[in-house]
Amino acid sequence: MNTPPLTPGNPDTGGDDPGNPRTTNGHASTGGTNTTDPNTTDPDLLAHVLLSRVVEPGDETAGRWLRERGAVHLATHLREGGPPLPGASDKRWTGLLARARRATPEDDLAAAHQAGMRFLHPGDLEWPAQLDDLGDARPVGLWVRGTPSLRMWALRSVALVGARACTEYGAHMATTLAAQLAEHGWVVVSGGAYGIDGAAHRGALAAGGATVAVLACGVDRTYPKGHTALLGRIARQGLLVGELAPGEHPTPSRFIQRNRVIAALTRGTVVVEAAHRSGALVTARAATRLGRHTMGVPGPATSALSAGVHELLRREAVLVSEAAEITELVGAMGELAPERHGPVLPRDLLDAETAHVLAALPARAGATAEDIAREARTTPDDAVGKLYELRSLGYVERHGNGWKLTRQGLATGRPRTHPT
Amino acid sequence: MNTPPLTPGNPDTGGDDPGNPRTTNGHASTGGTNTTDPNTTDPDLLAHVLLSRVVEPGDETAGRWLRERGAVHLATHLREGGPPLPGASDKRWTGLLARARRATPEDDLAAAHQAGMRFLHPGDLEWPAQLDDLGDARPVGLWVRGTPSLRMWALRSVALVGARACTEYGAHMATTLAAQLAEHGWVVVSGGAYGIDGAAHRGALAAGGATVAVLACGVDRTYPKGHTALLGRIARQGLLVGELAPGEHPTPSRFIQRNRVIAALTRGTVVVEAAHRSGALVTARAATRLGRHTMGVPGPATSALSAGVHELLRREAVLVSEAAEITELVGAMGELAPERHGPVLPRDLLDAETAHVLAALPARAGATAEDIAREARTTPDDAVGKLYELRSLGYVERHGNGWKLTRQGLATGRPRTHPT
Repeated sequence: MNTPPLTPGNPDTGGDDPGNPRTTNGHASTGGTNTTDPNTTDPDLLAHVLLSRVVEPGDETAGRWLRERGAVHLATHLREGGPPLPGASDKRWTGLLARARRATPEDDLAAAHQAGMRFLHPGDLEWPAQLDDLGDARPVGLWVRGTPSLRMWALRSVALVGARACTEYGAHMATTLAAQLAEHGWVVVSGGAYGIDGAAHRGALAAGGATVAVLACGVDRTYPKGHTALLGRIARQGLLVGELAPGEHPTPSRFIQRNRVIAALTRGTVVVEAAHRSGALVTARAATRLGRHTMGVPGPATSALSAGVHELLRREAVLVSEAAEITELVGAMGELAPERHGPVLPRDLLDAETAHVLAALPARAGATAEDIAREARTTPDDAVGKLYELRSLGYVERHGNGWKLTRQGLATGRPRTHPT
Repeated sequence: MNTPPLTPGNPDTGGDDPGNPRTTNGHASTGGTNTTDPNTTDPDLLAHVLLSRVVEPGDETAGRWLRERGAVHLATHLREGGPPLPGASDKRWTGLLARARRATPEDDLAAAHQAGMRFLHPGDLEWPAQLDDLGDARPVGLWVRGTPSLRMWALRSVALVGARACTEYGAHMATTLAAQLAEHGWVVVSGGAYGIDGAAHRGALAAGGATVAVLACGVDRTYPKGHTALLGRIARQGLLVGELAPGEHPTPSRFIQRNRVIAALTRGTVVVEAAHRSGALVTARAATRLGRHTMGVPGPATSALSAGVHELLRREAVLVSEAAEITELVGAMGELAPERHGPVLPRDLLDAETAHVLAALPARAGATAEDIAREARTTPDDAVGKLYELRSLGYVERHGNGWKLTRQGLATGRPRTHPT
């Protein structure tokens, strides 16, 4: 049995304090592209990787143990077959111990690195702090494929979700709304499923925009099979994210738990089409509970696939029929760095690649992502990723197919001849 | 010039106190089918008939004069060419005097009687008291064609309104909702126009139900021409109502003002389809101002004819997609005579025809309107009219195509062998 030592840490400073992100490279940086060192010996990181393999998504009891004891202590306790912790049945505890015994976090990290994945856990620079709103149901960690910073992207993101077996109308609305949101610099988050989810991702991608698929399985898997090409394209042009360790398969409860991550990650959830008792309604209700905006796209009263949305619209959700109505709502929550408040992150704290992309923007005119990529000597996909990060920081704005510096981007980036 | 004497009345007791309805025949009665005596010499009635010819719908200045001076005094003042009253421009005053000079209320009443119309004014037994919520914009009076009691019918009524140039979807929804409302004993009120209005009336009629068309012209006119057959059928099976005197034609402002009557008459207004700036939205907003329920039927976000409805749904309106959702809202305002409170109007105060219809219902089983009409020796149209009045009073209920006595109907109508 391969059981490397996990030095027990102080449970009170388990390293997962979201208020105190660790800096790993001296840069405050916009994110942590491939920041997980596969040869790490960081016991806190290894403990989180182990727990991400052992703890089922949304397990609040395990989340409480993690909060109270710290990751290293909890992982060691499970690995060494310690006595059951409060709240665990014998059967559940046996299962947890068996999974912990079989877990190989170093191997997981090495395999993930090989497959272009990284692992984020609370306290990482790239960890999206809004997931902490889930309390003890917060994911132990997130596996990520794709280069952009999840933390930056999630700051200006909206979830578009809905029925798998959607109508032509639903697919049209999802595609159109996603494309319009992308064109306004918003990141479209969905679940990678058939139907509305797929249409939303495609709409964002087709507009040269940013999209995140939150999966209910390991992000090395392509589920559903028919979305292999789409998910591959999202991994290149956007982000694949999930709390399940590599190789894990989706289950009904994992789909349900995945929805809470979509709701927590975004500023608001738009349900495009959903029958009564649809999973999309679970996401919408999670959004409401988390204080996010819950929105619904109306449809014919004669359509069973709009019935769930109409049910929401009669209760907690706001009716939206175009992207401007969505951004009006979610934008009102405040930008990370609105121009009137000046920059939150000074330009010289950006990581090198992001700074290159920012520098590649012309002073006054707009430029396409392709132009900017050429100028910054990177790929268009990479440039788009960075541009949406810079959008979250308030440096740039998207206008149709072009990108322009904002006043803030101009002010912080260019030599100034006079103060203010 | 034909100027019969109008005895000036006491302005303080102008006969239009809605709290003190006059009884004309000893019965409290369910209404006033053809109660207007064409040979009347009642000065208050004649004054109201004259004013209904002279005052434009919704004229709040004239409404104030009427409230402050009483109908007889105001009519006499106008007829005799008195000095302008406060708030009237010279031009407007001249117009009012000219119209008053030409008015022939006795002739109007006689002609109306010939054409099967009656005239209602505030204080009449059949006057729907909820119109008083319009304040000084309350109609001077209402011209009515059809036998049922407007007052009784309006008590359990819902407005279904919408675009003239509606879609197939809109027409389908209006027809379906109207039929379902009628089957649940609700009266469907609309404006008699093409499109949604016509579909709503037809849906109610097709279900053997009750419907009221509120016109923006004299109720002797058939406007629009293409609805001649429909309006004729409503006059026989339902009610045609309007505040314009016989022969008056519709104008744009009269359509707008008509909408306030629809909103005030009903417990709630449902907008089925409406483009931005549609007249149906005027009705909906009037309903909101009057404290009535405002509802909207959702449609595809891609349809311009649902855009106005969605605008409402983002603000004051409640989304409804089936009749049960409508009756849940408007029914919550309380029935006139809920079973738990016992009868408001004792059975022996019903007028003779209504009592006959009530007596024609079997004790326990249901019966169709046709059966009941045969038993009560009246026409099916008449029976339906009385049945919806009895429904408003809580005596009967409609179940599908049949009618049954409620517990209250049984309790008040049948000999009891024991108390309570």
